[in-house]
Amino acid sequence: MAGKKIKPRYYLIAALSLDGYIAKHARHFTGWTSPADKDFLHARLDASDCVIVGNNTYKTARQPLSKRNCLIFTKSVGAVKQASERRLYVNPAKVDVAAMVRQKGYRRIAVLGGTQIFSWFFKKNLLDEIYLTIEPVVFGSGLPLFNADVDTVQKFKLASVRRLNKTGTVLLRYTRNTH
Amino acid sequence: MAGKKIKPRYYLIAALSLDGYIAKHARHFTGWTSPADKDFLHARLDASDCVIVGNNTYKTARQPLSKRNCLIFTKSVGAVKQASERRLYVNPAKVDVAAMVRQKGYRRIAVLGGTQIFSWFFKKNLLDEIYLTIEPVVFGSGLPLFNADVDTVQKFKLASVRRLNKTGTVLLRYTRNTH
Repeated sequence: MAGKKIKPRYYLIAALSLDGYIAKHARHFTGWTSPADKDFLHARLDASDCVIVGNNTYKTARQPLSKRNCLIFTKSVGAVKQASERRLYVNPAKVDVAAMVRQKGYRRIAVLGGTQIFSWFFKKNLLDEIYLTIEPVVFGSGLPLFNADVDTVQKFKLASVRRLNKTGTVLLRYTRNTH
Repeated sequence: MAGKKIKPRYYLIAALSLDGYIAKHARHFTGWTSPADKDFLHARLDASDCVIVGNNTYKTARQPLSKRNCLIFTKSVGAVKQASERRLYVNPAKVDVAAMVRQKGYRRIAVLGGTQIFSWFFKKNLLDEIYLTIEPVVFGSGLPLFNADVDTVQKFKLASVRRLNKTGTVLLRYTRNTH
């Protein structure tokens, strides 16, 4: 509706081992998840206006992300650097990211990780939804979803729980508890 | 059946924040979970012959555990120390734990944590089942389920997924993928 401001909606999308790790190590992004998770992820990205991702994560998934509008977080640019039509490097310490997203007219923003990017959005209290795919594997150690030292315990609401396949991939969707 | 050997069954029971932590810090054991999780845990323990727990975790839950047969893992005893009828301190580096469990006739063993104890059982490949209660909260940082640096990715099977209450606590049950 003309003139009506629609608040952008940020949703975190991550796949976790059952012991809560998003990857075993920094170069381990998309390959390990089930076909059902990949189908879900691609459908969710098709319904998104923009993807926000850290530079390390982007490098592990450059090909599938190249057709999406990407804001790539990095400390290696002064403020912003437009690398191609769809690829914008952003230094989140130097730019008002939420204002930039609104100015670009993006309404559905997929936050894809990794840990530092997830933690940044969590600490800024910007996450409206969290989609977690839990795969039936144990990594033993690895990269956590968040690494954000906060005093509080933040509550979310479980919006849905869905089993994605026979091997036991589960999709949990959470929404903000307040606002 | 007389003479028939029944293999003890070890099951890990843990509550996790949605970001995969069992606690925010070392003294934070049972208090934070939902009533539905506590009901599940107590019913599961009532159906167990014995509880295995680390000494730090035991101290945070001494009262509810005092009525159970407890094997309490600690490095502070030479091998074993029977502290009371139900309370046995065990140094797992000095004792064949699986042989002791068989010798005592325990068949259903609840492994309650914390991270070091879970990791010990995971590395020994002793876990037959994993019960995870996922609470709809974010800790941001904390103690992981496992902290076991292993090269492999270990697969499990999802046996069931169940929503325990309206606020969104989910119970996942996994079983070993092989044998």
